[in-house]
Amino acid sequence: MNDHSHTHDHPHPRAQPHAHADLPQGDSPILVEVWRGNLVESRHRAIAAVVDAHGRVVKSWGDIDRPIYGRSSIKPLLAIPLVESGAADRYSLSEKEIALACASHSGEPGHVEAVNAWLGKIGLTADNLECGAHYPYYEPAMHDMLRGGVTPTRAHNNCSGKHTGFLSTAVHLGEAPKGYIQYEHKVQQRLVGILEQMCGTDLTGVPRGIDGCGIPTIAFPVGHHALGMAQMADPHHLPPARAAACSRILTAMSHEPWYVAGTTRFCTDIMQVTGTKAAIKTGAEGVYMGAFPELGLGFCLKIEDGNGRGAEVVMGQLLRHFDIIDADQAEQLKQSLNPTLKNWAGTAVGKITPAPLLHETAPF
Amino acid sequence: MNDHSHTHDHPHPRAQPHAHADLPQGDSPILVEVWRGNLVESRHRAIAAVVDAHGRVVKSWGDIDRPIYGRSSIKPLLAIPLVESGAADRYSLSEKEIALACASHSGEPGHVEAVNAWLGKIGLTADNLECGAHYPYYEPAMHDMLRGGVTPTRAHNNCSGKHTGFLSTAVHLGEAPKGYIQYEHKVQQRLVGILEQMCGTDLTGVPRGIDGCGIPTIAFPVGHHALGMAQMADPHHLPPARAAACSRILTAMSHEPWYVAGTTRFCTDIMQVTGTKAAIKTGAEGVYMGAFPELGLGFCLKIEDGNGRGAEVVMGQLLRHFDIIDADQAEQLKQSLNPTLKNWAGTAVGKITPAPLLHETAPF
Repeated sequence: MNDHSHTHDHPHPRAQPHAHADLPQGDSPILVEVWRGNLVESRHRAIAAVVDAHGRVVKSWGDIDRPIYGRSSIKPLLAIPLVESGAADRYSLSEKEIALACASHSGEPGHVEAVNAWLGKIGLTADNLECGAHYPYYEPAMHDMLRGGVTPTRAHNNCSGKHTGFLSTAVHLGEAPKGYIQYEHKVQQRLVGILEQMCGTDLTGVPRGIDGCGIPTIAFPVGHHALGMAQMADPHHLPPARAAACSRILTAMSHEPWYVAGTTRFCTDIMQVTGTKAAIKTGAEGVYMGAFPELGLGFCLKIEDGNGRGAEVVMGQLLRHFDIIDADQAEQLKQSLNPTLKNWAGTAVGKITPAPLLHETAPF
Repeated sequence: MNDHSHTHDHPHPRAQPHAHADLPQGDSPILVEVWRGNLVESRHRAIAAVVDAHGRVVKSWGDIDRPIYGRSSIKPLLAIPLVESGAADRYSLSEKEIALACASHSGEPGHVEAVNAWLGKIGLTADNLECGAHYPYYEPAMHDMLRGGVTPTRAHNNCSGKHTGFLSTAVHLGEAPKGYIQYEHKVQQRLVGILEQMCGTDLTGVPRGIDGCGIPTIAFPVGHHALGMAQMADPHHLPPARAAACSRILTAMSHEPWYVAGTTRFCTDIMQVTGTKAAIKTGAEGVYMGAFPELGLGFCLKIEDGNGRGAEVVMGQLLRHFDIIDADQAEQLKQSLNPTLKNWAGTAVGKITPAPLLHETAPF
C-alpha cells in the first residue's frame, strides 16, 4: 500500500464518505496510461471511490468529494421506482426488461424489438418516448440500417429502455406521461427523492444539467454516488419493498447483461463473466458506477477528461482489486482490461494500461 | 499576465526551447473546461508552445520539454522532400495535391479522386499505398458508400495524400516504392534527417512508435515540434530550395484548406477564414501544429488525455491570442472556437470553453 491510496478501517458518518489529505498528483491522479511504441502518449486522470452501505470508504483515489454527473451510470438507481411502485409486477416485466431499464443499449434489433414490445404492454408507442433518435452504437446494426435505407426511431436511442421504465411507472401510477423528462414532472421529482435517500445527500440547489436523452442529470460527490450503489448492493437496512427492488434490479443486470449494453460492449462482456458478483454500468464522460453485492460494496469512478477508454481500464482494475475477476478470468478478458491498440492495417501499435498508482496497489 | 504563462524577451539557444519553473497545476495545466448545465463536467489539460525560428519561446503553457508524438500534425514537415526534391515540379503538382500531402482528409469523393489521379501521374495505383483502408470520416460520404454497397480502398484512408507524396518522392528519386513506410526505407530516413534539422534535435535513440497509417512516429519535445513549424513559417535562414519548399507547402495549405481536411472540419473551417495568416494541422491524440507565417511563429500543442475536442479549443485560443482571428471572425467561427454541446434531441446542454488560465491571458 503506498501513500496515494487509502484504506479506512474506521467508519465515517454514513452520509459523508470523504477523501483524505491532498494527493501529490492533485485531485484526479493519473490512473491510466496510453502507450504507443515505447512512450506514454496520453494519460487519463480519475477519481474513484468504493464504499460500503454504512458510508465507510473502503478504497479511494483522488478527491471523492468532487461533484460529478452520474450520467447513464446512475440508471440502476433510476430504475428503483419501476420495481418498487409495483409497475414491474403489474406489467409482468422479465429480467430482460428490467435490465433494459438500466441500459445504454447498442440499438441492436433485439434491444429495439424488446423496447417496442414493452411499450405495447403499457399501451404506448415509441412516439411517447421523449428522447431523440440516433443510429445504433453497434456498427453492424447501423450499417444494416443504412444499407436498407432504414432511419432510426426513438426506440433505437440507447436510453429507450430507461425511458420506457419511466413511462411504465407514470402509467401505473396514473400520472400523465407527457413531459416525463422535465425536472418538475412527478417521475423526475420521485427520482430526486430516491437519489437523496440512497446517496445520503441533499440535492437542493445543487448544479444540474440535461442529459443526452433529455432527462435531468444532477451533480453530487463521487463518494455519494458510490454510497447509492452500496445501498443497492447491501440493502438489508432499507424498507423491504425498496430492498427487494434493489436486489431485483442488480440481479436482472447480472442475468441479462446483453440487455444492459450489447454485443462486444464492455459492461456486457464483463458481466457475462462475473455473473451476480458484479453489476456495472457505464455513463457518458468517463463514468462507471456499480455494485459488488457479495461484498456489500458500491463504487463510482470518473475520468477527469471524460474519456471512456480510460474509464474501462480503471473499471477493470477495480474488478481485479476486489477479486471479482480472478487471474484466469483476467486473461480471458485481456482485451477489455488491458486493450491492445491496433492501427488501420491491424498492426499492434500500443496499449492502454493501468498507471503505476493504480497497478501497484492491485490486488490488495 | 499571470504567473502561469510565460513570455520570454531573451533568446534561448535555438535548438533548445524549454519551459520554466514548475507550474502550480503540474506539467499539463487545465486549459479547457467542458460544461453541462452549471457544472464543469470534464477538463482537458494541455501543453502548448509558440516559438520563433530562433528558438525563442514567445508563449508557453506547461512543460514544453515533454516528448510527444506529433502524429498527423507533423505532415507539413513530412511534405518537405516532395517539394525540395523536385518531385512536385516533375509531376506538375498543384496546390491541391501539395495540400493533400499535408492532409488528414475526410475521404470525400473529391479527396479520393484527387489522390487516385495523382497516383496515376506517378504510374502507380492505390494498391501501392501501404496504409490500411477505412470508411471516410465525413459521415454523409460514409453513409453514401454503405447505401451503395461500396467498400473503402486505401485511397479513402485519411493519410492517402501523405502516402502518395512519399511514393512520388521515391519514384522521382529512383527508390523502390515497396516498404516506404518502414523506418529503414530511404523515404523515412530522409524524413528523420529533415526533422532533426528543422526541429533542432537529435533523434538518435528517442522513443518511437507506429502511426495509424503505418509510418513511424517519433517522439521529441513539444517545444522542438513548434520550432520545426517556426522554421517553416520564417525560412529565410534556410537553404533556398528548403526555404522555397516550406513557403510553398504552407501557402498550399492556406489556399486549399478543403484538401487538408474536408467539409465541416476544424482545420478547413479555420483556414478558410485566416487565409495565409495561418496553416494549422490536427493530429491524433490531441495534437495541433502549425505556423503563423506573417508573424514568423510556429506552434505545437498536446492535450494530455489525447482528446480532439480539447485540442480544438486550445487551438482556437492560440489563434485569438495572436490576433490571427479577430473579434468579428471569432464570432463567425463561434461554434468552432467555443462549441455549444447539443443532445440527441438538439437541445443545447453545455459548452466547451477555454479554462481561466487560457482565457485570462488572451489576447495579449
